[in-house]
Amino acid sequence: MTGSKRAESADLAVPARGLSRRGLLGLAGASVAGIGMGVAGDRAALAASATPEMASGSAEYPFYGRHQAGIVTPAQDRLHFAAFDVSAGTTRAELIELLQDWTIAAASMSAGRDVGEYGAVSGPYDSPPEDTGEAQGLPTAGLTITFGFGPTLFETADGVDRFGLVRRRPAELTSLPHFPGDDLDVGRSDGDLCIQACSNDPQVAVHAIRNLSRIAFGRAALRWSQLGFGRTSSTSTSQATPRNLFGFKDGTANIKAEEPDVVTAQVWVSAADGPAWLAGGSYLVARRIRMTIETWDRSILSEQEAVFGRTKGAGAPLSGGTEFSEPDFALAGRADQPLIGAAAHVRLAHPAQNNGTKLLRRGYNFVDGNDELGRLEAGLFFISFQRSPAQFAAVQLNLAKHDALNEYIRHVGSALFAVPAGTPEGSYVGAPLFA
Amino acid sequence: MTGSKRAESADLAVPARGLSRRGLLGLAGASVAGIGMGVAGDRAALAASATPEMASGSAEYPFYGRHQAGIVTPAQDRLHFAAFDVSAGTTRAELIELLQDWTIAAASMSAGRDVGEYGAVSGPYDSPPEDTGEAQGLPTAGLTITFGFGPTLFETADGVDRFGLVRRRPAELTSLPHFPGDDLDVGRSDGDLCIQACSNDPQVAVHAIRNLSRIAFGRAALRWSQLGFGRTSSTSTSQATPRNLFGFKDGTANIKAEEPDVVTAQVWVSAADGPAWLAGGSYLVARRIRMTIETWDRSILSEQEAVFGRTKGAGAPLSGGTEFSEPDFALAGRADQPLIGAAAHVRLAHPAQNNGTKLLRRGYNFVDGNDELGRLEAGLFFISFQRSPAQFAAVQLNLAKHDALNEYIRHVGSALFAVPAGTPEGSYVGAPLFA
Ligand code: HEM
Ligand code: HEM
Repeated sequence: MTGSKRAESADLAVPARGLSRRGLLGLAGASVAGIGMGVAGDRAALAASATPEMASGSAEYPFYGRHQAGIVTPAQDRLHFAAFDVSAGTTRAELIELLQDWTIAAASMSAGRDVGEYGAVSGPYDSPPEDTGEAQGLPTAGLTITFGFGPTLFETADGVDRFGLVRRRPAELTSLPHFPGDDLDVGRSDGDLCIQACSNDPQVAVHAIRNLSRIAFGRAALRWSQLGFGRTSSTSTSQATPRNLFGFKDGTANIKAEEPDVVTAQVWVSAADGPAWLAGGSYLVARRIRMTIETWDRSILSEQEAVFGRTKGAGAPLSGGTEFSEPDFALAGRADQPLIGAAAHVRLAHPAQNNGTKLLRRGYNFVDGNDELGRLEAGLFFISFQRSPAQFAAVQLNLAKHDALNEYIRHVGSALFAVPAGTPEGSYVGAPLFA
Repeated sequence: MTGSKRAESADLAVPARGLSRRGLLGLAGASVAGIGMGVAGDRAALAASATPEMASGSAEYPFYGRHQAGIVTPAQDRLHFAAFDVSAGTTRAELIELLQDWTIAAASMSAGRDVGEYGAVSGPYDSPPEDTGEAQGLPTAGLTITFGFGPTLFETADGVDRFGLVRRRPAELTSLPHFPGDDLDVGRSDGDLCIQACSNDPQVAVHAIRNLSRIAFGRAALRWSQLGFGRTSSTSTSQATPRNLFGFKDGTANIKAEEPDVVTAQVWVSAADGPAWLAGGSYLVARRIRMTIETWDRSILSEQEAVFGRTKGAGAPLSGGTEFSEPDFALAGRADQPLIGAAAHVRLAHPAQNNGTKLLRRGYNFVDGNDELGRLEAGLFFISFQRSPAQFAAVQLNLAKHDALNEYIRHVGSALFAVPAGTPEGSYVGAPLFA
């Protein structure tokens, strides 16, 4: 039986084969005993028969490596993000086992394979399939799966250190401060654990979150989740800049993977930053930002451009040039007013106003139907990666206080996670935290 | 000023240029007076700079034609569906004007152009942009926009014939019957008007619905809307069969565009069927079907296959063969039981059990976050096109009574629309209804 020989004690390595018994129980209900030996369906073979539109995005990113994938990886087009709470009664050993199971499944899916040894369709008939199957025949489409740990994982519950992690908590891993204008829904905020699944095919991203939730059964449960249908940032100079739902290019001045020095300085936690277990990792901030597009759509073009400080067409700074020209914040126009106004989003968010701070933005547009008044429930699911949460907090405080954009947006969800470094093959995600 | 010279009386033709004054007011708030002459941004030019993943699905389908696009069009990958109610106080002339405005905008977007004469970025600075802009730089990605009329459009309100259409109502255009197990949410059902926007790029589909809602401002408001991220049917033999969220191939035995006789017999309303204004049109049924995937995921493989009567891997009938083999409903296996059981979905839905009736299925998978219990709010947004609503009703009654699948699904939304024939260039969608 898959993985049944594995000891349940915490150790750094994962067994060479398969999910834990608990992971299989999550998949299987009661009847895993019948599982014999086999080989998981290889989706790549099936993918050969897929249509051209399905075959787009045949990129594949390895799960194992020095840093987790899904951070400097060129932003894929679609997102399924999920926050989990570890279920009451789950022990430290069981949490570790969950992370081990997740690691095995994530590595498998990232390589275009099903979850489990048999996958979706080749298992025994008297067991639930190990994989739910809706990604059969689809290419990996650049799937990355990125894990994070929320502040509450390091807390006590009823006076007891939940997982023996209280003393290992990074000093900076606390709830984000309250910002002016915040209108947060607790049901869309926070969480013990998070998983960011990105792919160029939404069905592949959804498949990943669904199968990981299923594996977590009894150990951790979905707290909230968010689908994003269009990336709002480029994270590589090889990508065209996409547009957000206000119709503006988004990601122009983003950190790009091709700037390794900036990435090192702004994105990765260094060994000196501490704690040691987080070295090579990062902090992930997620903000669900509702955009009141009906109001925006009634504002005139000059106001829209003034709000951002960039043109709507080319995305050039209002101080002139083309999309990638450096903005000149001093340049004045009529009546000696700066062309990029004092309340313009790009002025306030620019490193010049924030002691040189940059963020790696990796957000997605969302539309979740409409509200009772017939307004689209639309916005930006903002995600940023940074070496310290203080980077986000500094920029966001600046924006929350002064940004002209505030008239058109509302922050309704918020979460912060510590994202451990990448996982070496044979280990599991976050292992150094438990060492 | 765009379209301002046009008489407001109802006629079959639309003005050669631009949206009505009301449509522009929907876009613009108060300040349209400043609009001069110009040319809408051509997105195709911008698209040249798009990344490869953005460029996928460069297909383009003409909006004008004999039948509306989006029915036998090879099913695109993504959906944004919206139902509208015409606002109280809107007159018949205003309704016609709305349909004219929608026609112009839909034809423009279907050809990869912005809405309006100036589009998103080239308009005067003291007016709101005519197009919201988030599809700038994206190819059309096979966008189709399909309009339908709900039963309530043909009703009286407070004793008054809302739009003078009471006597033009097709006899079959009434609410669908209540089926056993129906658990419908009125907030996700029905509507005076519907728009189905399909594209291989979700941002393009969202852009279409958003701009059409905006144009409707003051005349019709969103009642409900649904995003679908993965098509669950192939409607052309050129397409691979996709999978639904239960992991099964879906669309195998669907009507295909390559069977013109079947399409004529089963999908298009004929002149003899009546009413005359609907000839060449169809009926659209939408059902929001919640799938309880957690329960499904715990059922064993043999049960899953028995429920559908097909194999999970290849999608072949349990009576043998390959995906496209005809099922043999008589063939018995062990203990003389038919290999495709009495309650199997494909047996009950097959034309053999339904007097030869077929449906053109064109549904989409959806995941709308999760519910409070941490279960994914997931399912199938079922769409079918048929010559008569009775076709759907017959099949669905059969399924609602006997289908083994009922243990795992719940119908939570329902709507029926009459879909008029295609629009000739120079006319507007549904014009014959008002002639
Ligand atoms: C719905 C909310 C938001 C929208 C629509 C939005 C949109 C934009 C746009 C259009 C740009 C200019 C192009 C670019 O460089 O990407 C931009 C820049 C930027 N934004 Fe935002 N943004 C939003 C929220 C935020 C938040 C919450 C933060 C962080 C706290 C942020 C941080 C930045 C940064 C750092 C830049 C680059 C500034 C520069 O260096 O020029 N944005 N944003
Ligand atoms: C969540 C709900 C549903 C699921 C998961 C589902 C799934 C499937 C699957 C896997 C097949 C076999 C492959 C194929 O031929 O496409 C199928 C066939 C079919 N389904 Fe459904 N279906 C659902 C609801 C419905 C509904 C509501 C109707 C219509 C009332 C319907 C009508 C049909 C028809 C007509 C066939 C083809 C039968 C044949 O000729 O072999 N289905 N469905």
